[in-house]
Amino acid sequence: MAEKDLKKVVLVVSKGNLDEAYPPLMIATGAAAMGAEVDMFFTFYGIDILKKGGADKLQLSPVGNPAMPKPDFSPVPIPNIVSALPGMTPIATAMMKKKIKDTGIMSIPDLVKSAQEMGVRFWACTPTMKLMNIEEADLIPTAGCIGVVGFLDMAADADVTLFI
Amino acid sequence: MAEKDLKKVVLVVSKGNLDEAYPPLMIATGAAAMGAEVDMFFTFYGIDILKKGGADKLQLSPVGNPAMPKPDFSPVPIPNIVSALPGMTPIATAMMKKKIKDTGIMSIPDLVKSAQEMGVRFWACTPTMKLMNIEEADLIPTAGCIGVVGFLDMAADADVTLFI
Amino acid sequence: MAEKDLKKVVLVVSKGNLDEAYPPLMIATGAAAMGAEVDMFFTFYGIDILKKGGADKLQLSPVGNPAMPKPDFSPVPIPNIVSALPGMTPIATAMMKKKIKDTGIMSIPDLVKSAQEMGVRFWACTPTMKLMNIEEADLIPTAGCIGVVGFLDMAADADVTLFI
Repeated sequence: MAEKDLKKVVLVVSKGNLDEAYPPLMIATGAAAMGAEVDMFFTFYGIDILKKGGADKLQLSPVGNPAMPKPDFSPVPIPNIVSALPGMTPIATAMMKKKIKDTGIMSIPDLVKSAQEMGVRFWACTPTMKLMNIEEADLIPTAGCIGVVGFLDMAADADVTLFI
Repeated sequence: MAEKDLKKVVLVVSKGNLDEAYPPLMIATGAAAMGAEVDMFFTFYGIDILKKGGADKLQLSPVGNPAMPKPDFSPVPIPNIVSALPGMTPIATAMMKKKIKDTGIMSIPDLVKSAQEMGVRFWACTPTMKLMNIEEADLIPTAGCIGVVGFLDMAADADVTLFI
Repeated sequence: MAEKDLKKVVLVVSKGNLDEAYPPLMIATGAAAMGAEVDMFFTFYGIDILKKGGADKLQLSPVGNPAMPKPDFSPVPIPNIVSALPGMTPIATAMMKKKIKDTGIMSIPDLVKSAQEMGVRFWACTPTMKLMNIEEADLIPTAGCIGVVGFLDMAADADVTLFI
């Protein structure tokens, strides 16, 4: 047991692939369940999760990750040259989504909803919005917009700040 | 010099490629050598390192990383279309392992052994085990199993917590 | 507002692709602008940013990242098999650089210069230098060289330490 309680957690979410969206959302909901104040700062590809309908459209890439077995987690890897063929990204995504569902793990849209119901605050990174031509109207209405200084100000007194 | 001693470090290990396994293990052994208490939480692809025989089988992907020169670190990059051919991942892995050995840097299995001899604690992420059909018997016997709340409880009073 | 000021930030820079170099440099300059002491520890592929002329040569990979739209951030993704063709990495890099310039965001070499003018300290990871055959003379002259223990000693009393 830790000698002190977890009071404040700040997470930077920089990745937008389906598998990469799980760790920040699972840590956020876990921390909120422990009673901590949680802020998530979505930057670069992570901002896709905050777009209207975006959490539903995340994909899994089967290319360039030899640590990843087949998308259903059976142990035979697929050569990159096959994974790179047109249509393989949606196939890998569909297989992983089915595996997640069969395992009883929450979907990304459900985790997003759950996090916000638990009081987790969502922030979009304003320089990223500028770079990717994203307007505030493109984001889910519960997301605020802050810059890097806003994020660092939140992190200054957090017990745990992670870049994910 | 820091004004205070490093007492506790918690590391999340989320990647399972050969090159990506080095930073967490080198930080863990460095922190343990400084007398800090160290906990490593292996999640997603990082859990491969905890599988029996897994640390020996990590691979290096030559695809999708233009920052990576040839696997022997000579400066001429290989086009992705060549890197993606069947057989290129094991070739890149073998070349990098040879380079590491020639440089006198420890192998991943030796770093794992060394970390545990220095008292670093290893934890497998239970939701990842469920998702990837991994049983406790598939893991090295010195690894414990905890969930996200267990990890956050350890992180609450750590001096440094990193998501790697 | 945070209840305490941000006094010290330590960033591990482990990635060397063009897009991946932005988050650490934007966080570093943001923290320095807030009056914090900032140290950046460049390790693995991140060390490319510290090489003489290296910040100018970072590339963007269009392969293996389905979260990434076309390099100009228009919403139609390119299949991996096309992205993997010879010449696609420089094309993607040039398109992203143009987009960055058009948006009025600083280039990586300008951010590096700006960070150092603001007092951000740069450190190259000595085990990485050994592995990649990099000599101190290959690095920009304002970079120091330290090992993992040196980094952890800096992190011990930092308010925020991130592995990026």
